[in-house]
Amino acid sequence: MKVLAILYKGFRAAKEEPRLLGTVENELGLRPYLESKGHKYIVSSSKDGPDSDLAKHIKDVDILITTPFHPGYLTRDLVDQAKNLKLCVTAGVGSDHIDLNAAQDKKIEVLEVSGSNVVSVAEHVVMSILLLVRNFVPAHEQITRGDWQVSDIARNAFDLEGKTIGTIGAGRIGHRVLQRLKSFNTKELLYYDYSPLPPDAEKEVGARRVDTIEELVKQCDVVTINAPLHEGTLGLINKEMLSNFKPGAWLVNTARGAICVAEDIAEAVKSGHLNGYAGDVWNMQPAPKDHPWRYMKNPLGGGNGMVPHYSGTTLDAQARYAEGTRKILENFFDGKPQDPATSSWAAATPKDQYGTTGKHSM
Amino acid sequence: MKVLAILYKGFRAAKEEPRLLGTVENELGLRPYLESKGHKYIVSSSKDGPDSDLAKHIKDVDILITTPFHPGYLTRDLVDQAKNLKLCVTAGVGSDHIDLNAAQDKKIEVLEVSGSNVVSVAEHVVMSILLLVRNFVPAHEQITRGDWQVSDIARNAFDLEGKTIGTIGAGRIGHRVLQRLKSFNTKELLYYDYSPLPPDAEKEVGARRVDTIEELVKQCDVVTINAPLHEGTLGLINKEMLSNFKPGAWLVNTARGAICVAEDIAEAVKSGHLNGYAGDVWNMQPAPKDHPWRYMKNPLGGGNGMVPHYSGTTLDAQARYAEGTRKILENFFDGKPQDPATSSWAAATPKDQYGTTGKHSM
Repeated sequence: MKVLAILYKGFRAAKEEPRLLGTVENELGLRPYLESKGHKYIVSSSKDGPDSDLAKHIKDVDILITTPFHPGYLTRDLVDQAKNLKLCVTAGVGSDHIDLNAAQDKKIEVLEVSGSNVVSVAEHVVMSILLLVRNFVPAHEQITRGDWQVSDIARNAFDLEGKTIGTIGAGRIGHRVLQRLKSFNTKELLYYDYSPLPPDAEKEVGARRVDTIEELVKQCDVVTINAPLHEGTLGLINKEMLSNFKPGAWLVNTARGAICVAEDIAEAVKSGHLNGYAGDVWNMQPAPKDHPWRYMKNPLGGGNGMVPHYSGTTLDAQARYAEGTRKILENFFDGKPQDPATSSWAAATPKDQYGTTGKHSM
Repeated sequence: MKVLAILYKGFRAAKEEPRLLGTVENELGLRPYLESKGHKYIVSSSKDGPDSDLAKHIKDVDILITTPFHPGYLTRDLVDQAKNLKLCVTAGVGSDHIDLNAAQDKKIEVLEVSGSNVVSVAEHVVMSILLLVRNFVPAHEQITRGDWQVSDIARNAFDLEGKTIGTIGAGRIGHRVLQRLKSFNTKELLYYDYSPLPPDAEKEVGARRVDTIEELVKQCDVVTINAPLHEGTLGLINKEMLSNFKPGAWLVNTARGAICVAEDIAEAVKSGHLNGYAGDVWNMQPAPKDHPWRYMKNPLGGGNGMVPHYSGTTLDAQARYAEGTRKILENFFDGKPQDPATSSWAAATPKDQYGTTGKHSM
C-alpha cells in the first residue's frame, strides 16, 4: 500500500531532537515498520494548492496521515480524486481539516488518536487562563526590556480565586480543564454542552451546567472553548456573541481558531471589552505575518497570550500520538477492529448542538 | 501618633486605577481613617540611603508600614535611631526586610497581614511551573515577531502530567501550591519542611515528605521554593545545591530572591542544567538593569519566566492587605489583642530548620 503523511518541517530542531516525532524529518517513527511490511511511505509538508505533494499523491494513496498542527486540508475535491484512499488517520485530536461528509460518502474511514493529547491541551488552557488573569506577558516584557514598574502590571493583575469560569464544551478536554480548575477556589465553574457530564463527574468537578452559550458567557469572568469545529461552531464567537460577555472578561481558545471571528476578537481586545485572549489555534495555519491576533493588545498593553499551534504536540504528546497512529495502522493491516474511541465521526455533530466529541472515552 | 508608610510609586496607573491601594498615591486608603483619629500620616517611596525619607522620619515615627514589593529595609542601625517606634506592619507577607532581632531587642512589634496574598502567590507558582514546562515564553515571542515554527517550540515543551514536583516549604503558600497541583496527575508530589503537614492535609494533597532538601531536588523535575528568607535559607540554592538537581529540571522561586545565588542560577540556565527559572523575587528590588535574571536563557532560547515582584500585589490582594493593615492599626490604637496569625516572629526560624511560617493559619 501507499501511505502519505503530511507533517510539519522540523529543520535543525528535528535533527537534534529525535523525540520530535511529528516532523517531516522524523516521520512519526513509522518508516522501518511500514517498509518492513512492504508498504511505500511518503512524507511531506507540502499541502496547499494544486501543485502540492498532497494534491499530487492523493490520486493513488491508500492511507493518508495528517495532523491538526500543520493541517493537510482534505477537501471534497481531493476526496473525489482519491481513488484508492481507504483510511485517514489524524495524528492528534480534531479532524475538521477533513471533509468528513465527503469521506463518509466514499466510505473512507477517518480515525484519530483520541486521548493522545487531551491532557496536553487541558494544561495549556489552565496555563493560558492564569497568565491572562495574572497579566504575565507585559510583566515579563517589562523585565526583559530592563524596566521595573510594579504598578503598571498590578493595575491589571487579578487572582483566579473568586472568579467565575465557564467552558463551552465539557468533553475530553473541557472536563479535564474543570478537574484542574477545581482546586483554585473559584466562585463558580460553569459549563455548556448539549450533553451533560455524567452526574458523578459533574459532582466531582463541582460544575454547574447552563442551558445556552449566551447564559454562560454573561456570567463568566473567564470563558474557555473546548468544542470541535463544525458548521455549528464556525464563527460562534462573533461581534454579537461578544456583546454578551462581561466587560473585561478573558477568553481562551485552544479548540480551533475558526470558532472565533478573528477581526471581532481583535477589536474586542483593543477596546478592552475583552481584557485578553489566548490560545494556540488560528483560522489559518501557519498564521500569516499580518494576522491581527499576533499583535492585538488591550488598552493597558497586555491581554495577548497567543502562541503557534503546539499545545497538543509537546514531546510527551508526540510519543503518544505516534504510538497511537502505529496502533491504528497495525489494526488496519491486520484486519482487526479499531478502538471505537478513535472514530472521528462523533465530531460531525448537528448544527444546533455545538457539541463536543468523545464523551465515551472521558 | 506619627505613621510612615513606604510604598511603591504608581504614577499614572495609580491615578487611573484607585484599586491600586498599595501605591504612594493611594496610600493604602488609610489617610481619612488616620487623620480622623488625629494621627499624622506620611507616605513615601524614598527608602534607600541616609537621605531617604525612611532614614529621615524613622527617628520619630511611632508606626512604620512597609511592603515586600518595594521593601523599606529596617536595619539595626535604623532601629537604633527609631526612638518612638512601637509597631512595624508589613502590608503583605514576609518581613525579612526588617531586622527582626534588632526589633525584638527594642520590643518593637512586627506584624504582617498573614494570608492576605498567599493564594495570589500560590497561583503565580502554578502558572510559572506550567509556562516553564510548556515552553510558553519563546512560543509567544515567536508569534509577536511574525514567525511560525512549531518544531522550535515543541522540541522543549512538555506536559506537567507524569512529572515529579517538589516544594521546599509547605506552609501557607507551599500547601496551597500542592493543593492546586494535585489534579494535574503528576507522577509524585514531594515536600520538604522541618514541620510535617498535618496528616489529613498530607493525605488530602497526596504529597510525600522527604528528609532533606538534597533528597528532594534529586528526585524532582520541578522544584518550587515556598520558604521565608532567613539566615538558614540565604543562598540555599547555590552551585553546590544545583549540582544535586536533575539535568533539565525547572525551578520556580516566588519566595525571596536571596534564597538563590543569582549568578549560580544564571549559569545553570545558560548551560541547560536548569531548563528554566521563573519567579518574581530578586535579591535587589527594584532589580538593576543589568541583573542576569533579566536576560538569561537556556540553550534553546527559553527558560526565563521572570517578572517584577507583583505576584502578591494583584488588585485582589491589595484589597486584602489594605484591609488587614487597617485592622492591625485599629487593634493597636484600641489596645485590643492582635490576631496571633499576624505575628511575623515565626519567620525567625533557627538556622538548621529552613522553615516556613504560619503553620497555625494554614
